[in-house]
Amino acid sequence: MVNRADIESFYRGFQERFSAGITRLDDGEPFTADIWARDGGGGGETRILAGGPHIEKAAVNFSAVHGETPTELSERMAAMGASFYATGVSIIVHPRNPYAPTFHANVRYFETDDGRAWFGGGADLTPYYLFEEDVIHFHRVLRGSCDRHPVADHAAWKQACDEYFYLPHRGEARGVGGLFFDHLTEDLDEVWAFQQDLADHLLDAYLPILEQRIATPFSARESLWHEVRRGRYVEFNLVWDRGTKFGLETGGRTESILSSLPPHAVWVYGHEPEPDTPEADLLTLLRGPARDWTAFPTGS
Amino acid sequence: MVNRADIESFYRGFQERFSAGITRLDDGEPFTADIWARDGGGGGETRILAGGPHIEKAAVNFSAVHGETPTELSERMAAMGASFYATGVSIIVHPRNPYAPTFHANVRYFETDDGRAWFGGGADLTPYYLFEEDVIHFHRVLRGSCDRHPVADHAAWKQACDEYFYLPHRGEARGVGGLFFDHLTEDLDEVWAFQQDLADHLLDAYLPILEQRIATPFSARESLWHEVRRGRYVEFNLVWDRGTKFGLETGGRTESILSSLPPHAVWVYGHEPEPDTPEADLLTLLRGPARDWTAFPTGS
Repeated sequence: MVNRADIESFYRGFQERFSAGITRLDDGEPFTADIWARDGGGGGETRILAGGPHIEKAAVNFSAVHGETPTELSERMAAMGASFYATGVSIIVHPRNPYAPTFHANVRYFETDDGRAWFGGGADLTPYYLFEEDVIHFHRVLRGSCDRHPVADHAAWKQACDEYFYLPHRGEARGVGGLFFDHLTEDLDEVWAFQQDLADHLLDAYLPILEQRIATPFSARESLWHEVRRGRYVEFNLVWDRGTKFGLETGGRTESILSSLPPHAVWVYGHEPEPDTPEADLLTLLRGPARDWTAFPTGS
Repeated sequence: MVNRADIESFYRGFQERFSAGITRLDDGEPFTADIWARDGGGGGETRILAGGPHIEKAAVNFSAVHGETPTELSERMAAMGASFYATGVSIIVHPRNPYAPTFHANVRYFETDDGRAWFGGGADLTPYYLFEEDVIHFHRVLRGSCDRHPVADHAAWKQACDEYFYLPHRGEARGVGGLFFDHLTEDLDEVWAFQQDLADHLLDAYLPILEQRIATPFSARESLWHEVRRGRYVEFNLVWDRGTKFGLETGGRTESILSSLPPHAVWVYGHEPEPDTPEADLLTLLRGPARDWTAFPTGS
């Protein structure tokens, strides 16, 4: 049976392993830990790496909070008991090099005192320049975790990710997707085994791409494009991301919630890349139908 | 009696006069006009100045749109007729110099085919460094327009502005306020006379402050603070501003709506200015109760 102590313990270890992996890649640049307590109960550890040689900003945040169910939460979840418990790890990595994609992932567990419990989470990739082999690698690793656990519905969760990370006001996907699952209330032992498998493979999914791209030479042109697209990342997180909006509206810890935002962003009126450029190719991809990135030969 | 043709004509003239005033101050840097049509009816002219010597980004946007009332609008306004007409001018000025405040203003008029009509609008100032004399000047000019028109409730509209331009997740005001009024459905002729008076004095309210501050020497320290605070501006506009959210959610013209965003913004985890600095003084002001900036001797 899943239980809070095991989940918290795994999440703390996951936070440690993931941040250590990023630090190794970033020539030893360490994270700074900010340990905080929540007024209503519980707390967390927000780990930030800023200004490293390759990673401009990363956050690997653990939290385990509990207490009286906030009214807003109760209304959203259709009456969910008088008290709640929530734990999770949220990750964002914003590399400095425009050829290296941004990575985001989240694993979480929720319980209420009326006996309900569920898992949620996912991972997704946001490139600024498209390298198909990177995207295929990323999706294959996520699919691998799903394929090892019959409880995981890769096709549905891949589609949920494409639908979630979408900017209706731009008609653009935020990135090239990944996995998104939420409110998994059944078969909790199996879901928990899957979630641990996924968490254990997120460095495999992302680090090889980072290693491949972080030393690519780039100029002011790529930097401007990077910052314009980071503006879109801000737009998604502040306008559409349910977790961010909910956190900010219900008195969540603002600095932890907004640690997902890129270090810089730029807004240029009516910015459109020149036709037949790598920038235009990315936009065409993001404005088009989502692709099935694992429908390629998987013999590798 | 107020009528659409007179209002549109005044708004177009106001757009022209305000953008000309900014261009004069910015050593002749011109605005670029982007004329657009709305699928459902009407259109507008978005005027952008970007990369001027003193003004990093400004938008002075006119629109006059009409058509079938969108379902979302009808629900928000509690059933408002089958068709609507809306016209307005929206202004944002983001100067390059951190000692020069950002300016925002808006005048608008709305009609429905069931015979209802109203005005709304306002103006507000967002400094990055506090110069009390600038803020007093700004509020006095706005109050002057109110004092000339008995229909204008300066105290209530000043308070509404303080309440509207507030970031609950930061516990901070966006800036030092100004005026905010909406849904003025009574005494439309008087309200219209007031609104024209206000529009005619917005250059007086802002330009002298700009002229005073745009040449102040500054270093990387002030620039970083400027960009961090511009991040707050983005947070307000994308998370809390009702007009922005509504526009993006109902298929408004994204580039025009988001022309209010600053050209650059920065997010630094847990950024707090050193105590006893001008940056800390500004934050203390923004985190404290709103001040009555016109309760000073007005003999000047």
